[in-house]
Amino acid sequence: MIKAAIIGATGYTGSELVSLLLKHPDVEISMITSESRKGELFSDVHPQFKNICDLKLRTANDIDTVNPDVCFLALPHRVAMEFVKKWKDKDFKIIDLSGDYRLSSAEVYQQWYDKVHDTPELVPEVPYGLPELYKEKIKGSKIVANPGCFPTAGILALAPLLANNMVETDSIIVDAKTGTTGAGIKSSPTTHFANVNDNFKAYGLKSHRHTIEIEETLSDSGKEKATVQFTPHILPVDRGILVTAYARPKMKITEAMLNERYRQFYKGQPFIRLRSQVPELKFVRGTNLCDIHVTYDERTNRILALSAIDNLVKGAAGQAIQNMNIIFNLDETSGLHIIPLQP
Amino acid sequence: MIKAAIIGATGYTGSELVSLLLKHPDVEISMITSESRKGELFSDVHPQFKNICDLKLRTANDIDTVNPDVCFLALPHRVAMEFVKKWKDKDFKIIDLSGDYRLSSAEVYQQWYDKVHDTPELVPEVPYGLPELYKEKIKGSKIVANPGCFPTAGILALAPLLANNMVETDSIIVDAKTGTTGAGIKSSPTTHFANVNDNFKAYGLKSHRHTIEIEETLSDSGKEKATVQFTPHILPVDRGILVTAYARPKMKITEAMLNERYRQFYKGQPFIRLRSQVPELKFVRGTNLCDIHVTYDERTNRILALSAIDNLVKGAAGQAIQNMNIIFNLDETSGLHIIPLQP
Amino acid sequence: MIKAAIIGATGYTGSELVSLLLKHPDVEISMITSESRKGELFSDVHPQFKNICDLKLRTANDIDTVNPDVCFLALPHRVAMEFVKKWKDKDFKIIDLSGDYRLSSAEVYQQWYDKVHDTPELVPEVPYGLPELYKEKIKGSKIVANPGCFPTAGILALAPLLANNMVETDSIIVDAKTGTTGAGIKSSPTTHFANVNDNFKAYGLKSHRHTIEIEETLSDSGKEKATVQFTPHILPVDRGILVTAYARPKMKITEAMLNERYRQFYKGQPFIRLRSQVPELKFVRGTNLCDIHVTYDERTNRILALSAIDNLVKGAAGQAIQNMNIIFNLDETSGLHIIPLQP
Amino acid sequence: MIKAAIIGATGYTGSELVSLLLKHPDVEISMITSESRKGELFSDVHPQFKNICDLKLRTANDIDTVNPDVCFLALPHRVAMEFVKKWKDKDFKIIDLSGDYRLSSAEVYQQWYDKVHDTPELVPEVPYGLPELYKEKIKGSKIVANPGCFPTAGILALAPLLANNMVETDSIIVDAKTGTTGAGIKSSPTTHFANVNDNFKAYGLKSHRHTIEIEETLSDSGKEKATVQFTPHILPVDRGILVTAYARPKMKITEAMLNERYRQFYKGQPFIRLRSQVPELKFVRGTNLCDIHVTYDERTNRILALSAIDNLVKGAAGQAIQNMNIIFNLDETSGLHIIPLQP
Repeated sequence: MIKAAIIGATGYTGSELVSLLLKHPDVEISMITSESRKGELFSDVHPQFKNICDLKLRTANDIDTVNPDVCFLALPHRVAMEFVKKWKDKDFKIIDLSGDYRLSSAEVYQQWYDKVHDTPELVPEVPYGLPELYKEKIKGSKIVANPGCFPTAGILALAPLLANNMVETDSIIVDAKTGTTGAGIKSSPTTHFANVNDNFKAYGLKSHRHTIEIEETLSDSGKEKATVQFTPHILPVDRGILVTAYARPKMKITEAMLNERYRQFYKGQPFIRLRSQVPELKFVRGTNLCDIHVTYDERTNRILALSAIDNLVKGAAGQAIQNMNIIFNLDETSGLHIIPLQP
Repeated sequence: MIKAAIIGATGYTGSELVSLLLKHPDVEISMITSESRKGELFSDVHPQFKNICDLKLRTANDIDTVNPDVCFLALPHRVAMEFVKKWKDKDFKIIDLSGDYRLSSAEVYQQWYDKVHDTPELVPEVPYGLPELYKEKIKGSKIVANPGCFPTAGILALAPLLANNMVETDSIIVDAKTGTTGAGIKSSPTTHFANVNDNFKAYGLKSHRHTIEIEETLSDSGKEKATVQFTPHILPVDRGILVTAYARPKMKITEAMLNERYRQFYKGQPFIRLRSQVPELKFVRGTNLCDIHVTYDERTNRILALSAIDNLVKGAAGQAIQNMNIIFNLDETSGLHIIPLQP
Repeated sequence: MIKAAIIGATGYTGSELVSLLLKHPDVEISMITSESRKGELFSDVHPQFKNICDLKLRTANDIDTVNPDVCFLALPHRVAMEFVKKWKDKDFKIIDLSGDYRLSSAEVYQQWYDKVHDTPELVPEVPYGLPELYKEKIKGSKIVANPGCFPTAGILALAPLLANNMVETDSIIVDAKTGTTGAGIKSSPTTHFANVNDNFKAYGLKSHRHTIEIEETLSDSGKEKATVQFTPHILPVDRGILVTAYARPKMKITEAMLNERYRQFYKGQPFIRLRSQVPELKFVRGTNLCDIHVTYDERTNRILALSAIDNLVKGAAGQAIQNMNIIFNLDETSGLHIIPLQP
Repeated sequence: MIKAAIIGATGYTGSELVSLLLKHPDVEISMITSESRKGELFSDVHPQFKNICDLKLRTANDIDTVNPDVCFLALPHRVAMEFVKKWKDKDFKIIDLSGDYRLSSAEVYQQWYDKVHDTPELVPEVPYGLPELYKEKIKGSKIVANPGCFPTAGILALAPLLANNMVETDSIIVDAKTGTTGAGIKSSPTTHFANVNDNFKAYGLKSHRHTIEIEETLSDSGKEKATVQFTPHILPVDRGILVTAYARPKMKITEAMLNERYRQFYKGQPFIRLRSQVPELKFVRGTNLCDIHVTYDERTNRILALSAIDNLVKGAAGQAIQNMNIIFNLDETSGLHIIPLQP
């Protein structure tokens, strides 16, 4: 059994990690930590876990007493890097769910996150934990940077186009819509019920940090710099991200060719479902699946690629476990055979 | 492996049965039927199952070719009894999720359902499949009548009071609130989004069929006829029932005594969670759990008992599987270790 | 024109007052205040008012410079009484939307609100501003205590029964369900989207402050002390309260008699709609209406009375304006002819 | 007083027309019709109107007995044109809320609606009733084609760019999100609560009929053929459309220039609110307002234009009344001074 520690368990990502790891056949949870609520039960913080997981929350300082095989960092960015700095020479693997190691360099990080990085030398070394693109790099890795939720949905929708050099790299638009859990468990006007319910709006126009994450990865897929217009919106929904992406083909294409390229690209990827119908949030709710529909509009000469994920699973905790499975050479789907909760 | 057939799979109950049985370690699904959509894939009807369950829908007439160990009838009432009539001498067990065999006699059935019963002799024989009350009767049974969703929540909230003869049997009020999936998958003004969203109302005042189901079972628990005021309401929510029940104590009671009686009554029942806080729908979503909170109001001399279930799981498909587990002498919780989806 | 000042405009009640008063043919808004955001525009705080009401927020200390005819206190309880103390000898009328003057005495107030009252002598003097019951007292009054939202719905559902001495005064149950705006504009776990959406729960069992408000008023209606079991619940809905009330008749009654008593009691009341169907939240959304349905269940010998209001209008700002209309001898419905927003 | 007849009142558009016209100072409703429910009260069909509008529903054949000044056709497309054919020589004005007269010719209509037109000669004659663009044409008109909901939001977001010849006409993307009332009052899987709630999806990719309506009008604004990529999505929301539109500038532009062009273009338009913040659905709910935010992304060299309307008001009934006001030379805002319902 792999012994797992979850660092930071008061948020949604931490809670989702616990939920998934409890059902994982090859893992046991050694420790769940929270600095603000240590000493309380995990099920005091997340009452749905009563009788299911009543572990006492500990402090991250106890790490040496539990001697885990893997640590999941479910912490805010900037806090995560402090733990990486402290623990980078420890024996266990680290899967960081924050944004701290997702970008190509400490300079880019500083530009988009407005923070100086603690361990600049590590940033280019840590692989980007999107298994559909970087499985080989993840395999041998000590640390993995788990992707952001929007980038997961956006990149998976578009990567086959870039990899096949099919689109103009300055024509890419990612119009994304997310449930409120993407904004975290903390109460704020952004997540206030009456501000969200029966409402809808965009936010972070032109400047959201996930923009650069999408751009860097798509550029890497295509071996040519891509520029991405990324516009997130907030839905009156708990979970789920739907991406509607647009790009201009570089060449003459057909619907059939397009679908064939996606089939080739995602062959053998267990969590990708290519669909002939449009994806819906509830078709992937609670799962690690990414549903994708791609189509070509002859009239406008434009490609549309739509994708749907659960932001807390494929967009966070589920993907982290997928990464863990790959690192430890388990079946990639171990613990992740989940059926969507619909309705 | 137990071979299971699911008869009627286009609705929510059928789909939930498939979802749960696919994960059951001791069951394999032999057949899923739909008369209206036979020949199509199950995942055409319920697209969330693509790549997960792509079985072809068959007709119930194929039953002999698959030779199942158990049949789940996920059919409307009145239709279910026709199948029971036809199949009552077959070798397999039958778990009927309709209302056709839940009441004490064909006469009572006719009075509340306004239909003459096809197999009146069977009605008093078939045990009421609420395992927390009737486990022993369920064990040896050929046919089980799976309880209604409201009765499951209402009876579990109140049974300890009746069993301990603690309340006036004419003082019981069950004010219940349900998600819309209780009204089924069929489109109608009742389930039209704009009629439900940001809205709330009662329905079926004084006359809902689940009234008699609650009354008969509570009367049986208490060995004295109970009368129940049952008022259902429809919530802008997919899943879940919350019951707020009121009763007048017959004797001098205390909060501590009340809690002790509930603890005793539900000792060893794996799906009952007695809570010191109020239950919430999302704390049981997707699971077979029933959360219960009971309290005594000294000021008004009244007992309040609140319960929450997922209407599609503990109120339907999950309880059906719990009944199957009992019939086949499996661990009662087999296939039902589910963690609530929250948020 | 009546000059109105709105004291405290950052919350929902203040915003709703502005919305209604802007359309009132006989009123002009002289001043809107907010201590925390003074100097900003009202439409900065509530952006829906851009181009509609861009008044600058002032401090309550400016009151003498505007010389209003009426002040609406849209303040938290405890804060409101400080203003009443300071302003009680001023020339203008005061309509207090807080709970500070709703109860019968400073002692009762202290018992339920856990605060010593600043102006104990005023508490029994200030009329309870429920026009359907106390129009005559409101007419000549300097100060009016605008009722709570739950009490408005609960009392209007039941008052005819008490006034006609028709029910056992210890048998009354008010099972109430409210939208989240009842919890105010402030962000908190209670109003966090993912805690409310697709969820439902009770709160404040046995102890909610509105209990005593309902009890005192119903007792006054009936000239006999009534005890009320009041259980509020929180709905995934913005606006609206639905009350499902139960009571035991004292006498032999019929459906027809019951309806006749309600018709008599509410004759000429412009905002009461007696309905033969169950009320729904959206049928009163945005309006000062109270929809009521009453029925008798012969089988259980119990009366059911259901009512629906918009908690921000009939339960707060609209009723405050109705009170103002009465005080200033305007048509009671002036400025309140609103058509429900449905869907 | 202008006498108005509303033809077809069982849907949302009809109900919204009644709601707005009842408050219009210069209009009286002469007749409301429904062929399927004639003889019933309007408030039987829409119970929120009880005591507010209890007119008996009549048949459209009664038109001559009421002799109206204006008829609003709230009918499905194809049905509307039959009435226009029948009534085109009558004395009254006709405002058609269907799609039958919105396009440039009967040929284009046939291509997108797959129907032969009944009155092909009228199609190019009837002005497109978007007052912000075509006020002068609407003024003298006998018949007006009220715009579609998506086109209203899409065109208003983009028209200043086309009119100023600022963007590449093949670069326009309209990513639109609508509440479910856009799909009408009829129950169907599309509007089934459990299919919409906590869910989100696109529909009508590449082929939605509103595409051509947007294209033709934008082309007309720009005097150059524009091609539009239009992608609608369905939100778990009752009312409201948010458009996120993208276009590539043709010239060197700045944020300031962009804003100035919009200010110029919409100068004096009473329902357009240019905002420095992103629009939200609830900021316009229940009103005839269109909120617009436009911005330039230097990094990507792309213009983003976002707009929000209430699909039933500015997207249907409110705009129809705005057109009526213009035809009858009333103040354009008469009867349309509505404050958004938020929360």
